[in-house]
Amino acid sequence: MTASQDRKTKADGPVVLSIDAMGGDEGPEAVVEGICASAEKNADLHFLLHGPRDTLERLVEKRADILAGRVQIRDADGVVSMTDKPSQVMRNGKGTSMWSAIDAVRDGEATVAVSCGNTGALMALSMVRLRKLPGVNRPAIAILWPSRNPQGFNVMLDVGADIRADAEDLLQYALMGISYARNGLSLERPRVGLLNVGTEEHKGRAELKEAHDLIARAAGDANYEFVGFVEGGDIPGNVCDVIVTDGFTGNIALKTGEGTASLIGDLLREAFNYSLPSRLASVLALGSLKRLKKRIDPRRVNGGVFLGLNGTVVKSHGAADATGVSAAVKLAFRLAESGFSDKLAARVASATEQVQDIQAEAQAEAQAGEDTPEEPEESRS
Amino acid sequence: MTASQDRKTKADGPVVLSIDAMGGDEGPEAVVEGICASAEKNADLHFLLHGPRDTLERLVEKRADILAGRVQIRDADGVVSMTDKPSQVMRNGKGTSMWSAIDAVRDGEATVAVSCGNTGALMALSMVRLRKLPGVNRPAIAILWPSRNPQGFNVMLDVGADIRADAEDLLQYALMGISYARNGLSLERPRVGLLNVGTEEHKGRAELKEAHDLIARAAGDANYEFVGFVEGGDIPGNVCDVIVTDGFTGNIALKTGEGTASLIGDLLREAFNYSLPSRLASVLALGSLKRLKKRIDPRRVNGGVFLGLNGTVVKSHGAADATGVSAAVKLAFRLAESGFSDKLAARVASATEQVQDIQAEAQAEAQAGEDTPEEPEESRS
Repeated sequence: MTASQDRKTKADGPVVLSIDAMGGDEGPEAVVEGICASAEKNADLHFLLHGPRDTLERLVEKRADILAGRVQIRDADGVVSMTDKPSQVMRNGKGTSMWSAIDAVRDGEATVAVSCGNTGALMALSMVRLRKLPGVNRPAIAILWPSRNPQGFNVMLDVGADIRADAEDLLQYALMGISYARNGLSLERPRVGLLNVGTEEHKGRAELKEAHDLIARAAGDANYEFVGFVEGGDIPGNVCDVIVTDGFTGNIALKTGEGTASLIGDLLREAFNYSLPSRLASVLALGSLKRLKKRIDPRRVNGGVFLGLNGTVVKSHGAADATGVSAAVKLAFRLAESGFSDKLAARVASATEQVQDIQAEAQAEAQAGEDTPEEPEESRS
Repeated sequence: MTASQDRKTKADGPVVLSIDAMGGDEGPEAVVEGICASAEKNADLHFLLHGPRDTLERLVEKRADILAGRVQIRDADGVVSMTDKPSQVMRNGKGTSMWSAIDAVRDGEATVAVSCGNTGALMALSMVRLRKLPGVNRPAIAILWPSRNPQGFNVMLDVGADIRADAEDLLQYALMGISYARNGLSLERPRVGLLNVGTEEHKGRAELKEAHDLIARAAGDANYEFVGFVEGGDIPGNVCDVIVTDGFTGNIALKTGEGTASLIGDLLREAFNYSLPSRLASVLALGSLKRLKKRIDPRRVNGGVFLGLNGTVVKSHGAADATGVSAAVKLAFRLAESGFSDKLAARVASATEQVQDIQAEAQAEAQAGEDTPEEPEESRS
């Protein structure tokens, strides 16, 4: 697959998104408010809304000025709670709004689903209902991370779909992340980095060195730049656009970054409340601080994207309010409109062939090395 | 070893620290300024200063008002640079200021060494010159992390001494971290958390579940509280005081946190420069912002501590200025004065026995399970 195949194309007619209205901390009110905010800005947006019909009809009716004729309600009484175990939901989840939202993608009624619910359950259900793309060993969750890049964000994956990843998984994450960066961030030629404890090629675990080699070899055919190993400090930096790592490390990094930002935010508020001049200062700086807050507001980059399945699922933060839901809907629209799911599938299919080619090549090289004996002593004369 | 053995005791007479004057980005000037700042506040501090005699004599002479009679210079012409490979330094590093500074600890002239130099080389030299404590498999680097705790900091280890750690290593990190928290942060009964991708006991890699069991079992005898698994967001939080992880994950988390803090700092500066009111605000808020900066200033918690060796090595940041060096010296003094090296050795020795006891116990339990056959059918009647 060439890069041009991966480019954005405008879909015909309205884009239909499948929305799980339940399971978020703020309830269906925040979800309906969120889709309403998005619908107001974007006339091409239509929705399948999953949850208890009575509740949803009442909420949609209230915003009929914007939502009339654009929302189809799919009745689903069950709700997956934040404490439900993924294994239980897989067995008994039929009839929940989450199951229904995913099945709409499975049945081809929408190409992207959005849910604020339990991440583990959402991933488990997505795996069993949508199934993995042919050739994908482990799906991944990709997020956008505020960074020093011109586009303001980096893509990082996996941030927690799976705690393990071998070299081939990491190559696949790289290729999926690149496709996401093209379609989600409109980057023509993304720069890819592999997360490690140092940038020198000899550093890190064995699977990382192997993945380094695989991603470097694949860069020749695909339209991306491989910058090699990157460090934790580069996640919010400007050395690459796509950061590849296993789900264990990615999850820890994500939560460490969020925790650090939150601590600094609280200390900043404390600092401004400290004295009369500092309180006055906070009033004067209000506009600037709001801009800063908006720049690093996690709600604005709300949406972990599940990659590697037959269909795309956007996981909104569980605590998302209407602003957060609207951001997740905007991302889902962008991915649906660009035909991302099909493009990703095509890219993964070509990647599978590519990995086989690379492995055959590496094997042939090793073979050739063995088959060429050292020059015998006598022939030197 | 009981907790009381682990408590701070005042050493007799002055405390001698072994200081590598070279290898930092700011040169020996910053190091001499830094020890001078510490010496001025603390009359008990004496120094062995390692580096080229002429340079150091000139710098110390300038600050004779404070340093006279308290600094012994050890001539060492060689300097380990930031780009030197650890393996090369291990082979050819004799005659460098770093080697000399470590050897002063090896020879018992000081119990703690401080260096701003190349971390990899410093760890490699510390390993070969000081050697690991009996019973320690992998030494660890512990750092202090700004947090919501009353003491303002958490201890995290390992942040990069080794990229691997098995369950027993993680138990040892826990016990070393506890000892460090007692002596470095004066916490009587530290709370320990094991870093994972979720707090539920079934989550994470196999070695983490095993380590969870080992640390929980050891908590009965030692004077600490085990809070179980913690997440990345808890690193700057208030659920524990000591965060245990492998050096790969710890290094990524540390650098991600630093990178995030640095990005926010830059965006904050940008925000304050944005308009005339915001610039005025920054003047009004100057005092409060300075306090905030001081609270999260990495220079104030400057010093990764190498644990698990015969002697303690404090690694100051390579870019440390006089303030940073002085913070590292303060930490080194605190550890030297409390007799930390000896206490840690005693604790590790007792931990080694403890691990053996726990393993024997677990084995016996498993054995007992096997030895008790299910009740035979006939006896039920």
